[in-house]
Amino acid sequence: MRAEIITIGDELLIGQVVDTNSAWMAEQLNANGVELYQITSVHDDKDHIVAALDEAFGRADIVLTTGGLGPTKDDITKLVLCDYFSSHLIEDVHVRAHIERLYRDRPDVLNRLTATQWQVPACAEILPNRVGSAPLMVFRKGDKMLACMPGVPYEMKIAMEEQILPYIQVEIRKTASLKDPRPIIHRTLQVTGIPESSLAILLEDYENSKPEGLHLAYLPKDGIIRLRLSSYGELTEEAMTQWFAQLKALVAGYLIADTDEPLEVMLGRLLKAQGATIATAESCTGGKLAALLNKHSGSSEFYKGSVIAYANEVKQAVLNVDRESLEKYGAVSEQVVAQMASGVKRLLNTDYAIATSGVAGPTGGTPDKPVGTVWIAWATPENIYTECFHLGKLREQVTDRACMKALVRMVKEMKK
Amino acid sequence: MRAEIITIGDELLIGQVVDTNSAWMAEQLNANGVELYQITSVHDDKDHIVAALDEAFGRADIVLTTGGLGPTKDDITKLVLCDYFSSHLIEDVHVRAHIERLYRDRPDVLNRLTATQWQVPACAEILPNRVGSAPLMVFRKGDKMLACMPGVPYEMKIAMEEQILPYIQVEIRKTASLKDPRPIIHRTLQVTGIPESSLAILLEDYENSKPEGLHLAYLPKDGIIRLRLSSYGELTEEAMTQWFAQLKALVAGYLIADTDEPLEVMLGRLLKAQGATIATAESCTGGKLAALLNKHSGSSEFYKGSVIAYANEVKQAVLNVDRESLEKYGAVSEQVVAQMASGVKRLLNTDYAIATSGVAGPTGGTPDKPVGTVWIAWATPENIYTECFHLGKLREQVTDRACMKALVRMVKEMKK
Repeated sequence: MRAEIITIGDELLIGQVVDTNSAWMAEQLNANGVELYQITSVHDDKDHIVAALDEAFGRADIVLTTGGLGPTKDDITKLVLCDYFSSHLIEDVHVRAHIERLYRDRPDVLNRLTATQWQVPACAEILPNRVGSAPLMVFRKGDKMLACMPGVPYEMKIAMEEQILPYIQVEIRKTASLKDPRPIIHRTLQVTGIPESSLAILLEDYENSKPEGLHLAYLPKDGIIRLRLSSYGELTEEAMTQWFAQLKALVAGYLIADTDEPLEVMLGRLLKAQGATIATAESCTGGKLAALLNKHSGSSEFYKGSVIAYANEVKQAVLNVDRESLEKYGAVSEQVVAQMASGVKRLLNTDYAIATSGVAGPTGGTPDKPVGTVWIAWATPENIYTECFHLGKLREQVTDRACMKALVRMVKEMKK
Repeated sequence: MRAEIITIGDELLIGQVVDTNSAWMAEQLNANGVELYQITSVHDDKDHIVAALDEAFGRADIVLTTGGLGPTKDDITKLVLCDYFSSHLIEDVHVRAHIERLYRDRPDVLNRLTATQWQVPACAEILPNRVGSAPLMVFRKGDKMLACMPGVPYEMKIAMEEQILPYIQVEIRKTASLKDPRPIIHRTLQVTGIPESSLAILLEDYENSKPEGLHLAYLPKDGIIRLRLSSYGELTEEAMTQWFAQLKALVAGYLIADTDEPLEVMLGRLLKAQGATIATAESCTGGKLAALLNKHSGSSEFYKGSVIAYANEVKQAVLNVDRESLEKYGAVSEQVVAQMASGVKRLLNTDYAIATSGVAGPTGGTPDKPVGTVWIAWATPENIYTECFHLGKLREQVTDRACMKALVRMVKEMKK
């Protein structure tokens, strides 16, 4: 079963909004055994939407659209589809009741524009949008389906999880009666400490010997390379497991993880298993590491807090870094970052701590400590480790990579 | 002049990577007077890439691709293009010299796979990639052009800024001799405190009276609606300025800003103008607000630091929140959040402070304080303000919206 996504909205094409929806939807589709063939972003323009629909129906069984379902004039998706399927708008009493309930306490929202939201194409199957006013619509074109969702990420996610994916599962079971569904399998390893090209040379024999239908991809990011094995129905689970084990053995010396689990989740899991806690003291990463550590639910079980010590006086007053070290070695130094780690560990009474201090740039570099220089310290119950990195020239790159370096070493220390 | 982007890589279509490149490129193209018509994401597959190229050349004058230029086997863009343009690979001495210089200290990277990077299609014009090993390639197809860049965001950005955009400017000047280039103008207002549908009703007469070529878009996100006026060469700068002023007057009661400037940048600007400093004390936002405040260069001029007080003992020990308030009112309360704000302001010796405490979810909600309840406190040199919000059900949504609420009010207080 093959799908395509069409994202609708001028904001995507003038760069006002990053399309985060498609990646999330892609992941869900793959997990449900649906191959995503193409993602196309088009303008809020009738001819453009129609052309994209025609092309997508020519290639895929399932077409998903996001966006253009708001009550304002610039949102035209519903009207274009009504026309595309030669239908007309009718009032949907269920949608009306839902919207009236949703905005019960908001008479200001229940206006005549919002009322247009319960007008739906007569030919569409309407699925409930539990958290918003735009109804989800499913259209049929021969044996193909089109599902339309709002572009607001939170609404789209709930729509996919509660309505569209179960609907797609039904579609899959229909075809499954004709032939076995092709399982899509992805397996990922995370490695570090080897250049991408050297890794590829290391894996050359492996790549030459693997079967046609088994794909190996290299995804380098922030100093970590994710190695992904994929099969679109060509391999059995057992064969995949064998090939994956072989790959894992080859890269054992560089391995961080044998899943695609984000490092911050992995670290959280290790801490919870030990009943241990962690804190961070951040200068150059400025809260990014803290935000990563408690991005996921349940972080309060292991994460107690952080001190973001951007200014030197904060490093002294709150983290107890001594003035002499600051003056003699500077804020970006082994001495200071080690004191930051031990300071925050003591202050917040945790088992582990990570500290960062560096020159994120673009300004502030010196010949001695150019932009990209980052000192990191890791405090464990017994020891303090420090390391200096050179992480590039761009502010975002430097801070993202620093967070990854910080997590990789902490995970390694915890696994010891 | 019309452009399209083709992003190449299986990782985009299985959801392993979010395409942040396209939005950034879109913004640059628009700023350079180039309309971006469509973004298409395709697999690392020869037929798929070729089909996408044919379609894009049928619609646009300029085609930009990202991705698939690495030295590993899964990256096939260069070979596909070599074939597409019926060319053959030759060694480029400049690229070779650059790569040998780039990896001077890394003999492990200078291997035979990396050496394939200086093999380039004979028909391509090669532009230097200052920060990476994959050469930038420009191909001609009649009077149309194709530019190929790496998918790594940092490399792509430098490639666009230093090489591709100047190249496109030359293209634009060529056509400009035939007819006037059409200026693309976007102007954005940011408003808050009014539902999208009510805003649209408020602007109904305006929308009905505005000229055909002037587009109005509504972009709601995290409690803020961005209202964007766009003209693709139909209006003069003067006419645009008049229509924009009229729009601004109509929404004056809800206005936060008359530019698309991110709120954290605006706040930084206001603080710098006053020579004032700020700190944050965060519970539910967990560092997200801190990371926002120092996302941009120059933040050390106004941002001193933060205390991320996830655990109650940190709120007490570091921020001096009294135990009684925590026990009597709970961590998510007006009393506690106000003490967090004044505590961090005192501790870090700043002029302003923001504190957050809430139930981010998905667990931890109670009937009294359901998931999404967030208390925020703003400390100014004279006062402390507090406000309670209900920001939805999803962890990311709750914390993103809390950051926006925190910034909006702080900006307002500073503008008073």
